[in-house]
Amino acid sequence: MTVDVFFTPAEVDPLAVTDATVVVIDVIRATSTIVEALANGARAVYPTGSTEDALRLAGSLGRDDTLLCGERRGLKIEGFDLGNSPAEFAPDVVDGKRLVMTTTNGTRALLAAAGARRTVTASFLNLTSTIQAVGNTERLAVICAGRSDRFSLEDALCAGMLLEGVCEGRQDSQVLNDAARVALLLAGAFAVDEGFLAETAGGAALIEAGLGDDLAFCARRDLHSSVPEMNDRIITLGVPAS
Amino acid sequence: MTVDVFFTPAEVDPLAVTDATVVVIDVIRATSTIVEALANGARAVYPTGSTEDALRLAGSLGRDDTLLCGERRGLKIEGFDLGNSPAEFAPDVVDGKRLVMTTTNGTRALLAAAGARRTVTASFLNLTSTIQAVGNTERLAVICAGRSDRFSLEDALCAGMLLEGVCEGRQDSQVLNDAARVALLLAGAFAVDEGFLAETAGGAALIEAGLGDDLAFCARRDLHSSVPEMNDRIITLGVPAS
Repeated sequence: MTVDVFFTPAEVDPLAVTDATVVVIDVIRATSTIVEALANGARAVYPTGSTEDALRLAGSLGRDDTLLCGERRGLKIEGFDLGNSPAEFAPDVVDGKRLVMTTTNGTRALLAAAGARRTVTASFLNLTSTIQAVGNTERLAVICAGRSDRFSLEDALCAGMLLEGVCEGRQDSQVLNDAARVALLLAGAFAVDEGFLAETAGGAALIEAGLGDDLAFCARRDLHSSVPEMNDRIITLGVPAS
Repeated sequence: MTVDVFFTPAEVDPLAVTDATVVVIDVIRATSTIVEALANGARAVYPTGSTEDALRLAGSLGRDDTLLCGERRGLKIEGFDLGNSPAEFAPDVVDGKRLVMTTTNGTRALLAAAGARRTVTASFLNLTSTIQAVGNTERLAVICAGRSDRFSLEDALCAGMLLEGVCEGRQDSQVLNDAARVALLLAGAFAVDEGFLAETAGGAALIEAGLGDDLAFCARRDLHSSVPEMNDRIITLGVPAS
């Protein structure tokens, strides 16, 4: 198995993504929010690159059962229905809805997976089920969302815990790129909890934006057994295990 | 003290660089070659962004005592005097010469330090003297050259060993960004030798280019006590310790 980790969307090597199973990770908060929303009954999530694209797509999907979701600088976009806090995406809010979503980093990471054989999203909320879902692949690539194309510790740690789980379950040899080797090392060095997230740059920024409550949510391990999967830029609940 | 590490030039936050002491690291090979060349008597190194800029600058400096140096895809640029292997920069070749240099990653990292209060270059060849030279700063930033704006393990490890040395010598508290925390962790996890470098992506590429002998050279610890310093895009031997 080959494993390539990319710490930011800017680092993604298209050649490493083609024909690979790609896992996109944005712990704070897009991929935490996506799995929460889908597990709570949302029909699909549509990641879009800009506010304008989101408005246009929501218009064409029909506003009756579509919610506009997303943030800029952490905060809900003006005129949108929801921000990017996973707790907002409760069953009574999202059940049966289509969610058009635009976030600062997560969306960019999802779009960087273009060309992948298969793309799923992971966070601490669905880590174990993701490990099971991608455990048999021969080419694994992990795209961390980072922050404005800078390294994010929480995404790298989540990537490392994913790799640790995948590698544990395999007998073959693994060829890791430099970033994957570092991610694996992180898995043994940090424990995930709210305090850990609060000390990352992304967590500190969220606290400063008044959204610190999201951190405890994003730190929850395996709240869901769902694995969101993206096809043609539409994310739905995929098959839980391969 | 605040410490910001940037794993690639693309990640550099100009605000974190302004008023900081910046250490630029390109273990394989630009900052290894620069310290070797200056320690062997070269008068100055002029990093330039392109082959064309290098040719122009060498022309204006006068070709008598100027050498054109640099690589593309690891190999010496056609028509240039030297490539980017530190062993090429022997005393009888470089003594008294001005070196106009363009490399794929190292030059970009040096130019990303624009706006810094002070910029020095480090590699394993001059790690201890760099620790001494920057140990008293209040704002430290480390720019890793990486590979084509992707994470490089050897640069991150060198950054971590630098931080470890700097932090050991201080009594105050240190505020580290996410990447600096990871770099510090690497310092305790890997030992530097030719074998370690050969297993990095950069090292493997160098071996494939037929330049594997450079790895043993770049792995040598503290061969020099010199600290190259860049002012107005000209690198000379700075003061060894602050």
